[in-house]
Amino acid sequence: VSRAVVTLLTDYGPHSEHVGSVHAVLVAADPEIVRVDFAHDIPLGDVRFGAVVLERLAMRLPDAVHLAVVDPGVGSERRALAVGLASGGYVVGPDNGLIGPVTRALEAVAAVALPARPGAAATFDGREVFAPAAARLALGEDLERLGTPVDPAGIVGLSLPSAVISPGLLRAEVLGCDRFGNVQLAARADDASAAGLLAGQRVEVTGPAGRCDAFVARTFADVARGALAVYIDSHGWLAVAENLGDAAARLGVRPGGMIAIAVPRTPAP
Amino acid sequence: VSRAVVTLLTDYGPHSEHVGSVHAVLVAADPEIVRVDFAHDIPLGDVRFGAVVLERLAMRLPDAVHLAVVDPGVGSERRALAVGLASGGYVVGPDNGLIGPVTRALEAVAAVALPARPGAAATFDGREVFAPAAARLALGEDLERLGTPVDPAGIVGLSLPSAVISPGLLRAEVLGCDRFGNVQLAARADDASAAGLLAGQRVEVTGPAGRCDAFVARTFADVARGALAVYIDSHGWLAVAENLGDAAARLGVRPGGMIAIAVPRTPAP
Amino acid sequence: VSRAVVTLLTDYGPHSEHVGSVHAVLVAADPEIVRVDFAHDIPLGDVRFGAVVLERLAMRLPDAVHLAVVDPGVGSERRALAVGLASGGYVVGPDNGLIGPVTRALEAVAAVALPARPGAAATFDGREVFAPAAARLALGEDLERLGTPVDPAGIVGLSLPSAVISPGLLRAEVLGCDRFGNVQLAARADDASAAGLLAGQRVEVTGPAGRCDAFVARTFADVARGALAVYIDSHGWLAVAENLGDAAARLGVRPGGMIAIAVPRTPAP
Repeated sequence: VSRAVVTLLTDYGPHSEHVGSVHAVLVAADPEIVRVDFAHDIPLGDVRFGAVVLERLAMRLPDAVHLAVVDPGVGSERRALAVGLASGGYVVGPDNGLIGPVTRALEAVAAVALPARPGAAATFDGREVFAPAAARLALGEDLERLGTPVDPAGIVGLSLPSAVISPGLLRAEVLGCDRFGNVQLAARADDASAAGLLAGQRVEVTGPAGRCDAFVARTFADVARGALAVYIDSHGWLAVAENLGDAAARLGVRPGGMIAIAVPRTPAP
Repeated sequence: VSRAVVTLLTDYGPHSEHVGSVHAVLVAADPEIVRVDFAHDIPLGDVRFGAVVLERLAMRLPDAVHLAVVDPGVGSERRALAVGLASGGYVVGPDNGLIGPVTRALEAVAAVALPARPGAAATFDGREVFAPAAARLALGEDLERLGTPVDPAGIVGLSLPSAVISPGLLRAEVLGCDRFGNVQLAARADDASAAGLLAGQRVEVTGPAGRCDAFVARTFADVARGALAVYIDSHGWLAVAENLGDAAARLGVRPGGMIAIAVPRTPAP
Repeated sequence: VSRAVVTLLTDYGPHSEHVGSVHAVLVAADPEIVRVDFAHDIPLGDVRFGAVVLERLAMRLPDAVHLAVVDPGVGSERRALAVGLASGGYVVGPDNGLIGPVTRALEAVAAVALPARPGAAATFDGREVFAPAAARLALGEDLERLGTPVDPAGIVGLSLPSAVISPGLLRAEVLGCDRFGNVQLAARADDASAAGLLAGQRVEVTGPAGRCDAFVARTFADVARGALAVYIDSHGWLAVAENLGDAAARLGVRPGGMIAIAVPRTPAP
């Protein structure tokens, strides 16, 4: 990209003053910086979901500077990092797992630990540490000048829970739910195949609120209004949605909860 | 306008990753595109209110590219359209009524049906189909190159419910409620006149939660704190507000509900 | 800053159409204007908290045009002002206390009362009066051309409630709570010192929901998970937070409520 692009992903809340503070730091550094809000409605402190969203959105702007803050441990001993990527971009954020997946997917080639700013507030590293670093990188400053070199291989990773698969049964954890009530599972297309879930098949989906019939479909629009669809979502994850309804509410699930998808046993002939 | 402007209106939720995904597509196409968020808090799937808001905001930037997605039927057979306007701007969105009013108000002069992208996710046309089309138009590409020509006259329209009017009585459907609890009705100034609602008059407003006294006023600030005002809102619609309060909660109404406004009968002298 | 910067702070709600309307006015005036959203989630009509947030964010961009609208009295007799600052920037907003602190902190050097626009909607001065004035200032127009000169000394101020201090006891009003449940008090570091609150000390914090143990700390990360910390927040205010929890919910407080922080009496030796 021809102009400096900085993306922002936080759990600060949409259009909160915390988001505004970070924007203000970037604009004060240079109003020409192109600012892109990736998401600010990440559930509070949900480092795992933040990491998943950051990775998939950053892939679309591989040479931008990605500023990410989901940081329940702000003020503690976790490191503050700026990471150079093979794609030419950078990631700036806490070393708590949030930036693990994206720095692996886009290949970290260098990293520095950002120093605390003398006299800075201890509770708002987004404004005091991360945004100033992102601005400096966007303006072309060398990564090495921002902090102490550290080994990129030591960036804290994130292991997503694996789906548990047996013939005709898949159990997976809920990664996140969106405004539409669509439930995104920690399982991918090949997990669904391995469990024998076939397109068009009727299955049973069980969550804390009970068991519901569903269909394996290409999209929720392929099932009747109010019916549940199991499908591969736009990010490649297995998901459950209710056509024109709220699957998360119906199944009673929240991020971190469990969902089972089962092929009903066919009675022997 | 001198630079390419793309506006965005969706029901994706404020600062959600879905909004961020669409921004990312535009920035990846060209960071110089000026992006303007019209609204992302349209009630889920409320095509009608989305259409109303899109029309009134797009009128202010008639030569911009307007990207609108309130699309409960994503993945179904409804068409994806890009429409050229007499004003020099464009509208890109699903052909489900959402873009009907704005393409009529700003006069559609050409339209194309956008093809599905091979291998694209079936559940996120905003990212896969609409945003790429908007970016191409913003960058100056010819509309005809984006898809198959269709007759602009065939764009799905939207008929707002009419107010029911008799002397001293107006009944109208609720189009939308905002954060302030102001209730916007599917009725215009001339409906109010036809029903004989006069400035300064005391009226009775009835919603599901009961009947309340109100005054026909220029603005809610013209009535006492906690009193209801019936007024013509900033978009020209008849509205009900409570001065420093929440009229929607008080009347118990939601979008799609009904409100009656009646002039009390004067006892015969 | 080299390009025209306009900041926005309102209680319109994140990504609401009201916010979009104001952006549309600015972009229609000139798409090159750099727009910065400071905050749009100010509690409805909370002029005081809006003023506090506006002041601290505007300090970071002293030469920008700051457009602020938290205006429960829109349509009433309060003045609409545009104010020139010694820093070279401007503040545009209602004269209801909202712009008092920032125009004092950045030193108002001139002010004009903005006229109502003939035929404009009475209920949306943000779009009809304030945004057009901000755009004109951003484009370099002279302040005097926008309205009738008024004395900057007459701008409505805002007096924050003082903390009540006695040895070992501080009582203060809640200014605001953020998404994290952190409680910001109308008290500063020197109030805490005056009350004898010492770093590392155990204290008792009392809110409407009861009394809780807490520690005077540098940050919430300095206390155990689920424990309460009393600390100086990133804006210099005394605050109460629960590490990885919601202090506002635990104490049962909302903006305008009262909190007491007490040093437990040591039994005589």
